Amino acid sequence: MSKAVAGQNRRGILFVVSAPSGGGKTTLVKAALDADSDLILSVSLTTRQPRVGEVEARDYYFVSADEFARRREAGEFAESADVFDHAYATPRAPLEDAIARGRDVLLDVDIQGARALKKLYGEDAVGIFVMPPSFAALESRLRARGTDSDEQIERRLQRVRTEMRAAAETEVYDYRIINEDRDQAAREIRAILTAERLRLTRVGEPGLD
Amino acid sequence: MSKAVAGQNRRGILFVVSAPSGGGKTTLVKAALDADSDLILSVSLTTRQPRVGEVEARDYYFVSADEFARRREAGEFAESADVFDHAYATPRAPLEDAIARGRDVLLDVDIQGARALKKLYGEDAVGIFVMPPSFAALESRLRARGTDSDEQIERRLQRVRTEMRAAAETEVYDYRIINEDRDQAAREIRAILTAERLRLTRVGEPGLD
Repeated sequence: MSKAVAGQNRRGILFVVSAPSGGGKTTLVKAALDADSDLILSVSLTTRQPRVGEVEARDYYFVSADEFARRREAGEFAESADVFDHAYATPRAPLEDAIARGRDVLLDVDIQGARALKKLYGEDAVGIFVMPPSFAALESRLRARGTDSDEQIERRLQRVRTEMRAAAETEVYDYRIINEDRDQAAREIRAILTAERLRLTRVGEPGLD
Repeated sequence: MSKAVAGQNRRGILFVVSAPSGGGKTTLVKAALDADSDLILSVSLTTRQPRVGEVEARDYYFVSADEFARRREAGEFAESADVFDHAYATPRAPLEDAIARGRDVLLDVDIQGARALKKLYGEDAVGIFVMPPSFAALESRLRARGTDSDEQIERRLQRVRTEMRAAAETEVYDYRIINEDRDQAAREIRAILTAERLRLTRVGEPGLD
């Protein structure tokens, strides 16, 4: 793997992973990172407070609402979103640095974020949509968590139905993975990383010693 | 693997593999076929005599020069080539049948053949160029075979230099694999098969039960 990553004079690739709520994306992202030491995870900024166990610069950059607003104003964000009372953003500088240095980045963002990133970075970004295997599976996953009321679950499922439409947006997503079997989905995401690094449009002119 | 192949209502994909002489392509094609029981190998027609061990319909369809000419005339070939005193061709019917039925096909053809197939089948075809790791490695591989004179080897290397230019043809080749380590190259070709089957432009409209 490292040969393909480091040995060629190519630009870094932004792998943008998004999924409807409950698609099991987080586990999949972790599996991809664990399997691929050359892959950098993009760390978002947020205005919300750290939760127990969250670490600055590993899970998020925790910033004040003022600092967030100032940096958004300065054009430092590749994408940003307001979720309930808090704001989240992906900083541009680490992405552009990685592209220039030929390092690959994994981004775990929502559908709006994926749209913004793909628009901004074009061919340097690869969109991967992770689908839940079925509504039935998703519903039982949500119920198994035991944290939501029936009404909340119904609202989430409704939202997923809306979000699922994004799975057809070929200008945003290049690949679609069905997260039915966790191991297979992990293999599939790794195959996408490997294949994209071999694309002729990325590897540049051939050279033989 | 079979889920991705059979479970979705998609068209079959033609994986077109070609390489400069001595690129180690044959071994790689065999590894891909062994690892993937859903993949069909395209069998060529030829006017040459079977060699010892070659089996009709497995290695080639052996036909007379007259039959070859008649079928070429009838437009039955996706591509054909004359190599020394013999002619070779890829029959169209099995390819078009596989595309329609959602079965994937592996084609082991030369660079001219890859150009013709990509032109004919467009997005249904995926071109993979297999590079020898270096001229030095290629030269020692040719010498190790012990079948060629110095002059023949020099002529082959010269031909490889010419053929290598095709490795930059993005309208023909989608991927480039460097065949340095046999196992890694085999993993890479398998990753390409997996990833291409997940491409949004192939898998069609999402449906959730």
